[in-house]
Amino acid sequence: MTLEALSSGLDTIWVVLTAAMILLMEGGFALLEAGFVRQKNAVSIIMKVFVDIAFGALMFYTVGFGLMYGKDSGGVIGTSGFLLGGDLSHIKLSISHETYWLFQCAFVIAVISIVSGAVAERINFRAYILYTILMTAFIYPIAGHWVWSVGGWLAGFGMIDFAGSAVIHALGGFSALAAAMLIGPRIGKYGADGSANIVPPSNLPLASVGAFILWFGWFGFNSGSTLSATNGSIGHIAVTTMLAAASGSAACILFTMLRYRKADPPMVINGALAGLVGITAGCAFVSDIAAILIGVVCGIAMVFATEFLDSKRIDDPVGAFAVHGVSGSIGTLAVGLFAMPDLTQSVGRGYAGLLYGGGWSLLGVQALGLAVCCLWGFAVTWFGCKAINKLTPLRVSRDEELVGLDVGIHGVPAYSNEDGFLELGSLKTEPK
Amino acid sequence: MTLEALSSGLDTIWVVLTAAMILLMEGGFALLEAGFVRQKNAVSIIMKVFVDIAFGALMFYTVGFGLMYGKDSGGVIGTSGFLLGGDLSHIKLSISHETYWLFQCAFVIAVISIVSGAVAERINFRAYILYTILMTAFIYPIAGHWVWSVGGWLAGFGMIDFAGSAVIHALGGFSALAAAMLIGPRIGKYGADGSANIVPPSNLPLASVGAFILWFGWFGFNSGSTLSATNGSIGHIAVTTMLAAASGSAACILFTMLRYRKADPPMVINGALAGLVGITAGCAFVSDIAAILIGVVCGIAMVFATEFLDSKRIDDPVGAFAVHGVSGSIGTLAVGLFAMPDLTQSVGRGYAGLLYGGGWSLLGVQALGLAVCCLWGFAVTWFGCKAINKLTPLRVSRDEELVGLDVGIHGVPAYSNEDGFLELGSLKTEPK
Amino acid sequence: MTLEALSSGLDTIWVVLTAAMILLMEGGFALLEAGFVRQKNAVSIIMKVFVDIAFGALMFYTVGFGLMYGKDSGGVIGTSGFLLGGDLSHIKLSISHETYWLFQCAFVIAVISIVSGAVAERINFRAYILYTILMTAFIYPIAGHWVWSVGGWLAGFGMIDFAGSAVIHALGGFSALAAAMLIGPRIGKYGADGSANIVPPSNLPLASVGAFILWFGWFGFNSGSTLSATNGSIGHIAVTTMLAAASGSAACILFTMLRYRKADPPMVINGALAGLVGITAGCAFVSDIAAILIGVVCGIAMVFATEFLDSKRIDDPVGAFAVHGVSGSIGTLAVGLFAMPDLTQSVGRGYAGLLYGGGWSLLGVQALGLAVCCLWGFAVTWFGCKAINKLTPLRVSRDEELVGLDVGIHGVPAYSNEDGFLELGSLKTEPK
Repeated sequence: MTLEALSSGLDTIWVVLTAAMILLMEGGFALLEAGFVRQKNAVSIIMKVFVDIAFGALMFYTVGFGLMYGKDSGGVIGTSGFLLGGDLSHIKLSISHETYWLFQCAFVIAVISIVSGAVAERINFRAYILYTILMTAFIYPIAGHWVWSVGGWLAGFGMIDFAGSAVIHALGGFSALAAAMLIGPRIGKYGADGSANIVPPSNLPLASVGAFILWFGWFGFNSGSTLSATNGSIGHIAVTTMLAAASGSAACILFTMLRYRKADPPMVINGALAGLVGITAGCAFVSDIAAILIGVVCGIAMVFATEFLDSKRIDDPVGAFAVHGVSGSIGTLAVGLFAMPDLTQSVGRGYAGLLYGGGWSLLGVQALGLAVCCLWGFAVTWFGCKAINKLTPLRVSRDEELVGLDVGIHGVPAYSNEDGFLELGSLKTEPK
Repeated sequence: MTLEALSSGLDTIWVVLTAAMILLMEGGFALLEAGFVRQKNAVSIIMKVFVDIAFGALMFYTVGFGLMYGKDSGGVIGTSGFLLGGDLSHIKLSISHETYWLFQCAFVIAVISIVSGAVAERINFRAYILYTILMTAFIYPIAGHWVWSVGGWLAGFGMIDFAGSAVIHALGGFSALAAAMLIGPRIGKYGADGSANIVPPSNLPLASVGAFILWFGWFGFNSGSTLSATNGSIGHIAVTTMLAAASGSAACILFTMLRYRKADPPMVINGALAGLVGITAGCAFVSDIAAILIGVVCGIAMVFATEFLDSKRIDDPVGAFAVHGVSGSIGTLAVGLFAMPDLTQSVGRGYAGLLYGGGWSLLGVQALGLAVCCLWGFAVTWFGCKAINKLTPLRVSRDEELVGLDVGIHGVPAYSNEDGFLELGSLKTEPK
Repeated sequence: MTLEALSSGLDTIWVVLTAAMILLMEGGFALLEAGFVRQKNAVSIIMKVFVDIAFGALMFYTVGFGLMYGKDSGGVIGTSGFLLGGDLSHIKLSISHETYWLFQCAFVIAVISIVSGAVAERINFRAYILYTILMTAFIYPIAGHWVWSVGGWLAGFGMIDFAGSAVIHALGGFSALAAAMLIGPRIGKYGADGSANIVPPSNLPLASVGAFILWFGWFGFNSGSTLSATNGSIGHIAVTTMLAAASGSAACILFTMLRYRKADPPMVINGALAGLVGITAGCAFVSDIAAILIGVVCGIAMVFATEFLDSKRIDDPVGAFAVHGVSGSIGTLAVGLFAMPDLTQSVGRGYAGLLYGGGWSLLGVQALGLAVCCLWGFAVTWFGCKAINKLTPLRVSRDEELVGLDVGIHGVPAYSNEDGFLELGSLKTEPK
């Protein structure tokens, strides 16, 4: 046994274990969203998560990984690594390319799962499969190439996005926004006078377990992004992740007690997630206190963003844009404010944020990169969904929406308390 | 700190962490099965999972481990290691015997959990305890000795079953088949004309979380089976595991859309699991493309197997045979087709499958070993259950089955929306 | 890459991964308790768990960690380490202070979650926030200092509590007892004649998943407490943890079959947890057989403790005292009986329990330390809650309790099967 073999084995199990934790987050997304939507659409949420994982992994294996991490062409696109083949010698890691692929695959599946929530309760299943292919083979990998790949043009400018506040969450959140706007609100969500109607989440205990599973997975997401177990930042990353999530939740508990006279459960669940999204870009580079501050700001901004979308009659059933789009943006910019030079040296840079004497340059680069990711996600989703709509309707029929997508599209309800057995075909699929 | 101490520590935490992941799969089995069965039997499923873990661990500690991994006698049986005592010097690992036991214990619990689903909604609790003892002390350990132990006769023939498609899943699946056939279908499952009636799963969101937890645990199952963190196959194993699961799900999504005109949620859930079962034997030895192919074949074969059992009026409520028996068999044989010589060298062999120039010999050995595992599981379960039936009825009474096992046997329903309190003994246990 | 860097990286990922597993236990507590209480209070349980994590982490960061692990003053209290600043040079570990904080933070959150269950269905949310601050900033850190910190007075006496049967579970359990006694039973729980009325748990499948997640997390809890991946005890700890949990469950299955003529699901769930709590103090120091014995005794004692509390009309809805208080006490004392000298040497001591020739001294120290932890938790909780009650009522109003805390306090039910949308403010908050 040599020191090198040991070191490589250590890094490999670190990345495999954290990748598995990130993949478990799909269970978290499934529960969170199935718990937030109406009972009649809970299964359809879960089927979309299966599409995310199944088609996401296969598309990222065949196409996406190559576009994202293949040999750079012009700072814009990767050109090798499809089916994990071709020249990948520019990727210099102690782990194998396969292991690296697995970790990145867990990321791409997270991105598409963000969009899934915003179009819940009304998207057509076939259209969703097509959009998943577009996102995981094309939209995310290309933006990812710009920020994270050797030779990517935003990476060249010095943009810092440690585990993806911009590349994953802001991009995913703005894509979710575009999709939600295009597909329109659910039937009955807004009154004739423009007021927002409500519906209690169908299963809050499930939704909250979803949040706890996501929280667990986030330790893999952020700490695992070191891709090496001997990276000295791992402990710090885990601590800032924990503090931002805690302060996001605490802020939402106290803020909703002030604003609504009650600690609001769905807001608190999303507040924890907002804190986690917000710290994702800077977890390795900001101080503990900055992490707490980021969590507080993201938690409260999420509340206002949720209210804002409703006032604009944009229907985002699980708050995907408010959590991922807004907090992802805040987190990306926060790096430009709070990055500490000694911490950014761990990625071979010594950049400092505005508050640590680095001037406006890092903040400017972050703002540019953020704007690019958001625009790219929004625009390609917008036009991509318009194109998909020509192939197959983006939205289910009115009858299917009223009866619910579970019985309407998948032929089975989420919950049943039947005592005995039914004859085949006896489930009714007409709206009441 | 020496290199040896470090290496041993690294291997130990790898095995402990992956063992914990596999044990969490029991939570996955509990959810999957509780979600698939009728509401009135959800608690009884969970109680059986507690039996699996509690009695399984204790029997494997006292008896099973010794029979499986103890000093070999004639290639047939182990003879030391009961209560972890005696001579175990033939086990040459960098981890302690205790740590090794924990990992293997997680495996035996998985086997018995497979059978649990096939006899759901009608098995008598006492009989199930006795069967659990039989399986975890005797059936599985002896077959495991043949294939996996130093000196086992099938191991001597060169059978390859990396993490147990044959020893765990095919054996468990064929045992499940025997038990389901012997105990007979649930009341009302088949019409007088032989047609299969249906009942919607009681809680599909729970079932799907179960599947996601199982998927997560499978990374521990397959990658952890290296028993060493510096094994160069870990990354490859995790990737083939991911790809087979993704392609199993994707295949079931597309195939059920074609066959039933809808993406069928229970089939998709089982399709993911079928892909995982199928890759378990060959995860370390086949290429990525072969893994995708195995996933597709297992996913689709599972659909046909489910339909076939119903056509034969064999009632397997959660599809245990279709998922574990069929995919486990396919996966075991697939090694004989797709094993690549450079990859099998990592286990000190250089065998090649039929498609890689190895001829028919490996495929023949795989087929022999598979047949032995399936027959052994089926036969001992069949006769064992007959014997158990003489001690205590295998099946609950008609009244208990109609009222449901939860209230009928365990005195408590799975779900309750009581607002206030009840006097003791007020729960009714008569069928409606 | 040096051997030291590798060793430190290995220890860091071990502690971060096990800390994440312990934090996931909050999801387990949430499910366990939400499943055990009535449906109308499930959300309020989950909101309390969010308070545990959010306020617990922030208080432990600002105050608790310093009091617990800061530079010792007189054996009584720590005086540095607030906000992770100041002199912490007395903590000699291969991991960073931040990483150490994260692991300890996961512990403090577990303690407060124990109390949460005992006051379920009737505590006022504001009062609970204040109590959480008291527990996580003050009660637990100070007791923890006595037992676990360099210079703590009970540590100086030689008290052994590996992962916290006394410091976490007994202290948490007796605090829970004090709070439950002070706040009084739920309306309707006891009849006019003093008899205990019952209510079926609202969601047993959820509760049992909670238990499986807790079981999984316990491997992190106990094994991770080595704080070093090269500690030779890790495998042994994981095995004793597994065996005690299995024997606690098995004992409860068999014992309730004898006592109640049925395997009682809530008792079996709590039996597994009782075994886990019981082994927490001695997991590294007792034999496998002792672990099995501890599990059996704790499982059965839990049943009697549950019945005893009901006979005294002390209402502890989820059995927090029976599981954590009683088993934590048994486990702490068991170290004084079963500690093996060769195993305790791994913590730099060579103490032996009564049954291994060590005489009464270790047992005496354990009993003293246990008594101190229990009294401290009980007394400060009792007087602390009395003080909190002057600031804000400890208990919700009668109307809020009858309608349920979910709608009454948080404005939203746990489960909803609404098909359409409601106008804002239309949820009724009056008792039926």
